[in-house]
Amino acid sequence: MVHYPIKRKAPAKAANHANLGMTLETDIEASNTYYRLHDIAVIHKKPTPVQVVNVSYPARNKAKITEAYYKTPSTTDFNGIYRNRYIDFDAKETNLKTAMPLKNIHVHQIEHLHAIHQHGGIAFLIIHFKRHGQYFLLPFPLLHQYWRLQHDKENGRKSIPYQVFLESAHPIKFGYQPRLDYLKVVDRIYFQQKEPEGS
Amino acid sequence: MVHYPIKRKAPAKAANHANLGMTLETDIEASNTYYRLHDIAVIHKKPTPVQVVNVSYPARNKAKITEAYYKTPSTTDFNGIYRNRYIDFDAKETNLKTAMPLKNIHVHQIEHLHAIHQHGGIAFLIIHFKRHGQYFLLPFPLLHQYWRLQHDKENGRKSIPYQVFLESAHPIKFGYQPRLDYLKVVDRIYFQQKEPEGS
Repeated sequence: MVHYPIKRKAPAKAANHANLGMTLETDIEASNTYYRLHDIAVIHKKPTPVQVVNVSYPARNKAKITEAYYKTPSTTDFNGIYRNRYIDFDAKETNLKTAMPLKNIHVHQIEHLHAIHQHGGIAFLIIHFKRHGQYFLLPFPLLHQYWRLQHDKENGRKSIPYQVFLESAHPIKFGYQPRLDYLKVVDRIYFQQKEPEGS
Repeated sequence: MVHYPIKRKAPAKAANHANLGMTLETDIEASNTYYRLHDIAVIHKKPTPVQVVNVSYPARNKAKITEAYYKTPSTTDFNGIYRNRYIDFDAKETNLKTAMPLKNIHVHQIEHLHAIHQHGGIAFLIIHFKRHGQYFLLPFPLLHQYWRLQHDKENGRKSIPYQVFLESAHPIKFGYQPRLDYLKVVDRIYFQQKEPEGS
């Protein structure tokens, strides 16, 4: 009996929480709920903007939207307050192993984060490299540096290399509660707070 | 010929901009656009939350929502950053002349504003008394005082008297650009800044 080689997809990593069907957005929302319940921060996801075209009123006091379309958000998905500071970020995932494509980010999101940064807010992205099972906090200035360079013919590229994340971005641990403790990383970067030993 | 008395509605005030079909929300949005364009503040209205039930795909890349319902917002309508500070508020209108009913405000909005206030943010309501053509900024602590008292049998009431607005809230001028310069009032209350003479 001949054993033919069988092409397989790479098996999913057993320890990867992605198996649980969670998305980055769900993980961040769960973390935000944890932060709110423990009175650590007040951070919410903004609703997805929808352009409503038609509404019917089949029952009293209950409007039924019968035609609507998703709109492009003009800002980022998450904002709120933490330790007296305004905080604002978006979350992006990539299936690539070697880089995060800049086309995942809309120009108005860059403009928004830039304005927030200039007004004294904490502005960043949370990036999930799905194939690595890794999460990073990417502060706005580093993102901006790559964004501005992308159309430079000599030094520009249309993505931020994974290596740059390893060297210059900030890993976020995936855990139980909160799932993505990104505020611990915010403490370190924006409040110059050292982690207690042994943590 | 006998002139019978005719019951009339009070005529609309000629100078009232409400005649232009503007709503309070539109006026605040226009002011926020002005603040953003002049790099004074970054404040946005959050999209109205919608529960999407059914989506169809009549054309490539264009999802059409065919069944959806409005959800009760879990926070306030407006937030952003101003002078390094997190700012968060909602806007309410009333047709009453003598008071603003507290039932216009949802309990989760009070809880949200309370949390923002405790985390060091600037939290308030903008109230429009339509019959007076007047706008007020009502800081959260004053709102909270009346909210907590409302179920008190002796001193409680289910509204905030107009007189309290005249005595203790802060009038916002209606103008041309920006239409509702509420940040000028924020300067005075939260940044102890005096207005320049003659303004």
